[in-house]
Amino acid sequence: MSEKIVIKISGKIINPDKPDIIKRYAEVVRDIASRGYRVVVVVGGGSYARGYIVCAKSIGLTQAQSDMLGIEISRVNSLLLAYTIGDDVYLPIPRNIEDVERAWSINKIVVVGGLQPGQSTATVAAIIAEVLGIKRILYATDVEGIYDRDPKIYKDAKKLDIIPADELPKILNQGFEAGRYELLDPLAISIVKRSCIEVTVFNGLDPYNIYRALEGAIGTKIKPC
Amino acid sequence: MSEKIVIKISGKIINPDKPDIIKRYAEVVRDIASRGYRVVVVVGGGSYARGYIVCAKSIGLTQAQSDMLGIEISRVNSLLLAYTIGDDVYLPIPRNIEDVERAWSINKIVVVGGLQPGQSTATVAAIIAEVLGIKRILYATDVEGIYDRDPKIYKDAKKLDIIPADELPKILNQGFEAGRYELLDPLAISIVKRSCIEVTVFNGLDPYNIYRALEGAIGTKIKPC
Amino acid sequence: MSEKIVIKISGKIINPDKPDIIKRYAEVVRDIASRGYRVVVVVGGGSYARGYIVCAKSIGLTQAQSDMLGIEISRVNSLLLAYTIGDDVYLPIPRNIEDVERAWSINKIVVVGGLQPGQSTATVAAIIAEVLGIKRILYATDVEGIYDRDPKIYKDAKKLDIIPADELPKILNQGFEAGRYELLDPLAISIVKRSCIEVTVFNGLDPYNIYRALEGAIGTKIKPC
Amino acid sequence: MSEKIVIKISGKIINPDKPDIIKRYAEVVRDIASRGYRVVVVVGGGSYARGYIVCAKSIGLTQAQSDMLGIEISRVNSLLLAYTIGDDVYLPIPRNIEDVERAWSINKIVVVGGLQPGQSTATVAAIIAEVLGIKRILYATDVEGIYDRDPKIYKDAKKLDIIPADELPKILNQGFEAGRYELLDPLAISIVKRSCIEVTVFNGLDPYNIYRALEGAIGTKIKPC
Amino acid sequence: MSEKIVIKISGKIINPDKPDIIKRYAEVVRDIASRGYRVVVVVGGGSYARGYIVCAKSIGLTQAQSDMLGIEISRVNSLLLAYTIGDDVYLPIPRNIEDVERAWSINKIVVVGGLQPGQSTATVAAIIAEVLGIKRILYATDVEGIYDRDPKIYKDAKKLDIIPADELPKILNQGFEAGRYELLDPLAISIVKRSCIEVTVFNGLDPYNIYRALEGAIGTKIKPC
Amino acid sequence: MSEKIVIKISGKIINPDKPDIIKRYAEVVRDIASRGYRVVVVVGGGSYARGYIVCAKSIGLTQAQSDMLGIEISRVNSLLLAYTIGDDVYLPIPRNIEDVERAWSINKIVVVGGLQPGQSTATVAAIIAEVLGIKRILYATDVEGIYDRDPKIYKDAKKLDIIPADELPKILNQGFEAGRYELLDPLAISIVKRSCIEVTVFNGLDPYNIYRALEGAIGTKIKPC
Repeated sequence: MSEKIVIKISGKIINPDKPDIIKRYAEVVRDIASRGYRVVVVVGGGSYARGYIVCAKSIGLTQAQSDMLGIEISRVNSLLLAYTIGDDVYLPIPRNIEDVERAWSINKIVVVGGLQPGQSTATVAAIIAEVLGIKRILYATDVEGIYDRDPKIYKDAKKLDIIPADELPKILNQGFEAGRYELLDPLAISIVKRSCIEVTVFNGLDPYNIYRALEGAIGTKIKPC
Repeated sequence: MSEKIVIKISGKIINPDKPDIIKRYAEVVRDIASRGYRVVVVVGGGSYARGYIVCAKSIGLTQAQSDMLGIEISRVNSLLLAYTIGDDVYLPIPRNIEDVERAWSINKIVVVGGLQPGQSTATVAAIIAEVLGIKRILYATDVEGIYDRDPKIYKDAKKLDIIPADELPKILNQGFEAGRYELLDPLAISIVKRSCIEVTVFNGLDPYNIYRALEGAIGTKIKPC
Repeated sequence: MSEKIVIKISGKIINPDKPDIIKRYAEVVRDIASRGYRVVVVVGGGSYARGYIVCAKSIGLTQAQSDMLGIEISRVNSLLLAYTIGDDVYLPIPRNIEDVERAWSINKIVVVGGLQPGQSTATVAAIIAEVLGIKRILYATDVEGIYDRDPKIYKDAKKLDIIPADELPKILNQGFEAGRYELLDPLAISIVKRSCIEVTVFNGLDPYNIYRALEGAIGTKIKPC
Repeated sequence: MSEKIVIKISGKIINPDKPDIIKRYAEVVRDIASRGYRVVVVVGGGSYARGYIVCAKSIGLTQAQSDMLGIEISRVNSLLLAYTIGDDVYLPIPRNIEDVERAWSINKIVVVGGLQPGQSTATVAAIIAEVLGIKRILYATDVEGIYDRDPKIYKDAKKLDIIPADELPKILNQGFEAGRYELLDPLAISIVKRSCIEVTVFNGLDPYNIYRALEGAIGTKIKPC
Repeated sequence: MSEKIVIKISGKIINPDKPDIIKRYAEVVRDIASRGYRVVVVVGGGSYARGYIVCAKSIGLTQAQSDMLGIEISRVNSLLLAYTIGDDVYLPIPRNIEDVERAWSINKIVVVGGLQPGQSTATVAAIIAEVLGIKRILYATDVEGIYDRDPKIYKDAKKLDIIPADELPKILNQGFEAGRYELLDPLAISIVKRSCIEVTVFNGLDPYNIYRALEGAIGTKIKPC
Repeated sequence: MSEKIVIKISGKIINPDKPDIIKRYAEVVRDIASRGYRVVVVVGGGSYARGYIVCAKSIGLTQAQSDMLGIEISRVNSLLLAYTIGDDVYLPIPRNIEDVERAWSINKIVVVGGLQPGQSTATVAAIIAEVLGIKRILYATDVEGIYDRDPKIYKDAKKLDIIPADELPKILNQGFEAGRYELLDPLAISIVKRSCIEVTVFNGLDPYNIYRALEGAIGTKIKPC
């Protein structure tokens, strides 16, 4: 039986301003799949999503409606990546959890954006992992991993190699506003804990880091159980 | 413009063991809709859902898969209520948030069960309210409201008439296990707070209590903002 | 070309009260598929369906609406079995004949419940077999096969090894009421006759009996043509 | 509450060879709907369906596949009628029973063809009536009603004004072959009996006969209970 | 019978950089609908679509895939406008011509983006008009109308009040590249001609111009027949 | 990587009047797929479609509605071919471009009819080729290829072996009326040019000609770039 993984890629990384990164991600994902991994890629919304969310708030739409618009952009980003990967991907981009199950049962690479308002794409990754019985999430973001203190403020903040999921809430200071869920929100943490899903947070600005994250050589490993 | 409400009914109340209650709920919901309210009814899973969830765990399915089975039962309960309400209801039962939007745009009563694993039907009610711009949730359960202490343990526990949403987490002791989300989980609380959605928790074992809850005469009002 | 079969399992056998039987059925179905059989499993509603149907009648819903509720439960039972089988199954559970065709074209194990009111799941099995060009149905129920007389009444009733489909109506005393279609109803008989689909009725309370039924060693074979 | 009816029109009547009849049926159906009736129209396949079914058999497709092709043609006929009726119709043409429920909940005229292989469109009419709680079917065909003997053979055959459903099987000699189900097949009879749905068989070659059939002035009334 | 119109709004006008224009368009469309017009709004992709299309080409995707990404953005723009209009809109945004027919049959305002690669949203507007029997398209763009010469080059170019559709190809110099279809492409012209659909091209940067265009007071009228 | 082709077959060839041709096409397509080609077959509407289109016009439906009816028939023809090909085909017949993408991602033979009004099935073939990155279309029709003059009029018309796409419009005299698009319409030509898709027009009345067309031994090759 092949190993199954979820690769969660921030919308800061996969978006139309970065065609080269998208091409390299497409290659890496295709390559990993060809080695026998079954892969779900969860793509975030990024700055284009932010544009729609800011507009939605300016108009006075609800937070959930703003989220829905951001989710749509995460799906367009997903489609961009999916087309670049090519014929090994399931299409169209799944829009809800049943769609994800359908896509998964086809034995193709699944690329998916957000699913529901009020959820980060990290939570999407956790729920999908749980539904499909996947035990590992590679979380590509724009930082080296999780730090003991906010590295934007504290110059001497130290990247952690490993952190128990239980200690995350102390470290992460979660805001709760449409499109603003940083790293793992409480629901994502609850899910990875209850189903013992290992999460590796790593710097995905270099797509080849996925290989290193797979081997556990970089980033921060969240020990769920 | 007509007032819009979400009525959330526990699966302990709407299930095949209680045909009479279902008939009366159908009447009440139809009546409220005929007075000009636009209504979404969110129905929980109850003991039939529990049967499937227990079985799923015994088999070794994941928590999310157990949840999915419970969600299916909440949809069967929804269909049971929907058929009883009759031609004023949208069918088929919506299965995701886009389905809910489609159903809502038809101007019929919408009856819906769960949407996604890892979520209580209380969260479903909150998300739907936020997406549709609904400002009020009537939450029918099998207790009189929210108490200052656990009334099953403390005989002198006092039902609260009103409680700020901020204080809920202190009072509710949330477990997090498939099919076991009591009252409002953290995501539901976050949503009602950020979008200022008023929630009235009341004893729904008597369907006519909906009228009293509508007037604010019974239950506990959660002040969201 | 691989052999194609339909396995019809009564809801008396696959339901949440019997996690162990479900686990063993999942193993057996997976194993048969791994030997090169292409498999459709049709699952009935069982006692949980009965609960909803009884309630529906007590409320005064129509027979077809009662059936629809029972069909929903047969789908939840199907999902339970499907999750237990795992990644070799098509999801989500097909809900109509076109869904079945889609699922079949994926080359996965297909698990399906009821499709339409007024039909037993035996008829579902027959229609699916005919649409997909399948020539054999294994019919797992809670009796050893078809008897020359009602074995619940006559102690000396004799199990038949083989019976021409034409003689079935004489022996089976069909009721016609939602959720109460026993063994093969007239439509199922007509279909297996017109398309010459062989049906083996056997005791499926022991899942390993499928192997014996496959070999023709147990049960009653209905000779269709 | 408005009265609800199913109008079943044979494919011998609604098909592309008869544009004038289609125009007049469109007018009549629109007019009946405007008088406050809620209407489902079930359209058969006719000679174009027959063309596909004959071809399918010549190729060696299964009976169910032949039926599926005939069903598709009944849907094209339905679309033809629906476009002619205009904006008062629900589109697209429903393809399964859940689609029918969705269409019905929109409060438009519903036009539908076949739903499943192995079923006459008369059975489709009966199942839809039962699911939607409709108590009356107007059955437009190319004969004046039901005769005591086959009027194609016996010149002195007498048209019946009324016949108990129980006596139908004696009179109708049902064949069972794809695309060849005449008048009411056994399943349709069972359904109209169990749910007491009145059926009026009348000559629909003149569309204005619908008015007379509505008043009970022509055709044969099948007394179901 | 109410008048039916298609309002086609360029993505240069409806996009997340212009919340105020969106709010005003929402008002105007709602107002026009409340006066008894049945309205379909077709929204283009604009600069956000351009961002994805440029990226797609840089990656080396096909023109049709680039178009598909642009179409997705036109749908997000549509959703943005639809949420702003509120409960009078059909949701979710239709994704193909059958979805459009479904949406139309609901009697709500329909908001839609692109449908298929290789087509301008002007063609979308023309096809939808033709399918729904709509005889008038209001085409809001960022110029005053159609000029006798390219106004960006020739200072003395004169806006035309009326132009026969036959003469359009001479004046419009159509490029044919994903996301670059200006005004009416040949297919759109063919459709408005063959079905005699009147098109008024006007400056939609001021949303209130819709009223003037409705009255024929501004823009260029394309006489189709 | 396997070669990918689109086979476009005129409705004059695949229709219920020609069961033998359908059987042979089914064999040929299955055989080509078994040699490692990934195949999309696009089927036209033919004379049955014409019957519906003529009726639609006689009734006074719009051109787009007439087209929609013809498209439905092209789908029934597609289903007929698909059933004849058997288990190697994706079902159900895709109805829009996203459906085509879904079908393609399954790795089965895709059979499809029309997609949208105002388009020939030649354009459908071109759009599908472009979306899926297919570089070759085999276009089976009832003539030997493209002639320098209309061979129905000029006896000495010469079949061309090769023709640059740019010169096609001069030679083809396109009408523009529902159901009457001959060979390549302007949109199809634009697409094959912009994406450099080679089209071979050949006599498909003999299904085995596909092999010769694949080798470039017969028909007219349209050089797109």
